Amino acid sequence: MNVLGMFCVRGFGVAGCRTATHARYLHSFPGITVAQIDEEVAKLLELKAQIGGDNVKHQFVLKTAKGTRDFNPKQMAIRERVFNTIINCFKRHGAETIDTPVFELKETLTGKYGEDSKLIYDLKDQGGELLSLRYDLTVPFARYLAMNKITNIKRYHIAKVYRRDNPAMTRGRYREFYQCDFDIAGQYDAMIPDAECLKIVHEILSDLDLGDFRIKVNDRRILDGMFAVCGVPDDKFRTICSTVDKLDKMAWEDVKKEMVNEKGLSEEAADQIGEYVSMQGGMDLAERLLQDAKMSKSKQACAGLTDMKLLFSYLQLFQVTDKVVFDLSLARGLDYYTGVIYEGVLSQTVVAPVSPEAQNGAASEESVSVGSVAGGGRYDGLVGMFDPKGRKVPCVGVSIGIERIFSIMEQKAEAAAEKVRTTEVQVMVVSAQKNLLEERLKLLSELWAAGIKAEVMYKKNPKLLSQLQHCEESGIPLVAILGEQELKDGVVKLRVVSSREEVDISRADLIAEVKRRTSEA
Amino acid sequence: MNVLGMFCVRGFGVAGCRTATHARYLHSFPGITVAQIDEEVAKLLELKAQIGGDNVKHQFVLKTAKGTRDFNPKQMAIRERVFNTIINCFKRHGAETIDTPVFELKETLTGKYGEDSKLIYDLKDQGGELLSLRYDLTVPFARYLAMNKITNIKRYHIAKVYRRDNPAMTRGRYREFYQCDFDIAGQYDAMIPDAECLKIVHEILSDLDLGDFRIKVNDRRILDGMFAVCGVPDDKFRTICSTVDKLDKMAWEDVKKEMVNEKGLSEEAADQIGEYVSMQGGMDLAERLLQDAKMSKSKQACAGLTDMKLLFSYLQLFQVTDKVVFDLSLARGLDYYTGVIYEGVLSQTVVAPVSPEAQNGAASEESVSVGSVAGGGRYDGLVGMFDPKGRKVPCVGVSIGIERIFSIMEQKAEAAAEKVRTTEVQVMVVSAQKNLLEERLKLLSELWAAGIKAEVMYKKNPKLLSQLQHCEESGIPLVAILGEQELKDGVVKLRVVSSREEVDISRADLIAEVKRRTSEA
Repeated sequence: MNVLGMFCVRGFGVAGCRTATHARYLHSFPGITVAQIDEEVAKLLELKAQIGGDNVKHQFVLKTAKGTRDFNPKQMAIRERVFNTIINCFKRHGAETIDTPVFELKETLTGKYGEDSKLIYDLKDQGGELLSLRYDLTVPFARYLAMNKITNIKRYHIAKVYRRDNPAMTRGRYREFYQCDFDIAGQYDAMIPDAECLKIVHEILSDLDLGDFRIKVNDRRILDGMFAVCGVPDDKFRTICSTVDKLDKMAWEDVKKEMVNEKGLSEEAADQIGEYVSMQGGMDLAERLLQDAKMSKSKQACAGLTDMKLLFSYLQLFQVTDKVVFDLSLARGLDYYTGVIYEGVLSQTVVAPVSPEAQNGAASEESVSVGSVAGGGRYDGLVGMFDPKGRKVPCVGVSIGIERIFSIMEQKAEAAAEKVRTTEVQVMVVSAQKNLLEERLKLLSELWAAGIKAEVMYKKNPKLLSQLQHCEESGIPLVAILGEQELKDGVVKLRVVSSREEVDISRADLIAEVKRRTSEA
Repeated sequence: MNVLGMFCVRGFGVAGCRTATHARYLHSFPGITVAQIDEEVAKLLELKAQIGGDNVKHQFVLKTAKGTRDFNPKQMAIRERVFNTIINCFKRHGAETIDTPVFELKETLTGKYGEDSKLIYDLKDQGGELLSLRYDLTVPFARYLAMNKITNIKRYHIAKVYRRDNPAMTRGRYREFYQCDFDIAGQYDAMIPDAECLKIVHEILSDLDLGDFRIKVNDRRILDGMFAVCGVPDDKFRTICSTVDKLDKMAWEDVKKEMVNEKGLSEEAADQIGEYVSMQGGMDLAERLLQDAKMSKSKQACAGLTDMKLLFSYLQLFQVTDKVVFDLSLARGLDYYTGVIYEGVLSQTVVAPVSPEAQNGAASEESVSVGSVAGGGRYDGLVGMFDPKGRKVPCVGVSIGIERIFSIMEQKAEAAAEKVRTTEVQVMVVSAQKNLLEERLKLLSELWAAGIKAEVMYKKNPKLLSQLQHCEESGIPLVAILGEQELKDGVVKLRVVSSREEVDISRADLIAEVKRRTSEA
């Protein structure tokens, strides 16, 4: 069996030698085909299954996948309230909506996210296409535009995205989470759609009533120009940029250390960057930097700064400059941004309760601020990456990170001991005596036919008390009580749960009466 | 390099020998660990990547994954209409809603779907847990109940599920598709929740106005009893059941052939089954079968038939017996059903247009009826499979298959040349002269602040005609026109798009006027 080995794979030989040795490796087995490798892999995996999988205790574990969670009815009620606020805002701004599949061809996502690509979930190769779960809604949107040759659209998309990140669930960070995206695609005059995106962040964070917030703004061109004039070599722009991106979580000293020690930047360059990234302001800062001896040497930076001034002039018209800060330390990580970038940050520091789910999160993280709840920017090159002829469609958009917002809303509801209704039942059909199930079902059917939200207990002979208790617990406002006397008289006893007031209503008037009383409430 | 091979895997040796040889194989390499196998697999896959993946042309393909699709704004508008009808019905029946993650631990899904398990999408093993995409919403629901020790709930869940099926997209069959599930969990009196599920199917199919339909009902216990009295061996119940399930697509002769030739059933047994599965009726049929010489010998069948009678008595109260048929040929494939099962079937035969996406579907399939659009049943054992102590929670539910319904609605909209609005914009702010962008943005901001859905063109100096054209195309009812004269007079010229009527409205009255005119519409 092992004598006729078609080719052998050594346990440790290959690991250390990435590229050069591989060529030799291939060379020494010129007959190897992909099909043969696939076969070997399948056999090894079968062998693995035979010897007991990952060897851990094979007891069934009753849980959701790491970094994911269920939403119970109360959480769903809160979630829907948040969604409605956001969707209302998107619709107020005239957006249409689209939907795309939860997975894309793997190659659709390849090369779009820079260092974050390692966090993409891949599907198992079960024969057929290689697929990955979407990492955001922006790349699928760009793929959609290119595929359908759409050159302008204003759309929102609310859907789940997937990242194999280290979850910190008490801070509202999950591996499966919703994004609420609003994007404007099309060739338009500078900064008008960009200003609307910032206006939208301002409206949503105000409407959700999450306390004070700020919206930081910067521009990729200003960052790149800054790196250039500070002496960062061209090929280090992206990696230095992702180090700057850590300034909201790390002190400048540590960021500088990473630049110098890990990324090999000169101390001088790092210090010059340090000066710029401490700057914050508004239109005035943009004007000052346009006069700055170093900055003004970069054409890119000047283009970005001129647009920043224009942006602030529109933001003034939209009356949102109270919350918007031009902040040179803002450097969003994603590769695809080309112009303005922004981030909505809550000022409030939320102390999350330590839940049993928090086992994997460092304890010290629990009291950290919830931080960024919205982000976005301009990405003029992304659609062109998908178009066979490279035709560009300029885009700008914003993504609302609903999970963190949702965590806060949930805590607020809990703190206020707010009673959240999880159904909309208007009336419960109840019987006062035994053997009236059929009468209850008949009345129930009449109510449903009239569009009234109604229910019964699924018991032949439920106790009156337990039927009334159910109404109290789930906030049902009205009870329609049937007894032998009521049936004889052709009436229904209508009980108002809150006041315990009871009135006999004739069967013919019942529906109108229920509608009248529940539309008032 | 190949001399020190820790162990060798031969190209063809292992494939033919599944279990017995594997033990020997292991025996001869007692030192192999799972970690070593993992390492080998990783190296082979890397090698595969080096030699060019699957060797097919490596051109970038601009498409969605096989069996999936995007929804454009028009489709989304129709989809939302369908969802609203369904959600309204679920809410009318007093349901709460929950949400679960799109993937589950692989073992959560294992052993729940019988022969269909091969259609489950697995995620790639990227280190960590083994995960699969959900195949339906029922198994995650049962997992949710067991995990949270919930013993009664009435909930709906609308979400996407995933099946690696052969897509027939023109018939509304996809690999990613929505299910709209309504389930009642809890220990209740027989057939009351079951009857409500059928009532819900009746209401939804009526409300959606999809033409005539029927709801077939049967019971797993009647099927199993029937198999027993017809002489089917116990261990063949499930496989014979899945053959019976094909009766809606295959003639009885072919089904019989499969039973006898493929599944090894005796011809006598098959013929007896054939007699029963041709029977259809209502309460009368249940009564007749309770007297049937053979059927009455099965305790199981009698229990099912007695419940069927009770079910029909409730269905009469709910006034839905016009569409419900007790049909002994109905045999839903899923393993987890234990009692009543049902399926909503449209009578209409839809001839789908042959779309370019239909490449993979057999041409002969195009004119087949859309068929089943709802299905469900009772599954009293599923939650117990997850509970550590095996505690059972009886459940019954129904799943609405939205994609097929959606295909029909889309075709209807197309056939009626219906103009579907994809935004809700009430007023477009327009300028009649140049250099009025700032004034437009200011007015726009005022409208947004008042909750009015409004937009502008993102151009400094758009042509009046192109602004008005945009309103016509996207169905915006009102235009707020700003010109130098209007600004001087403190008015806005309000234009009604449909009638082209124009009136000057003072700035102070504009918002009230827009609200008045758009609430009328």
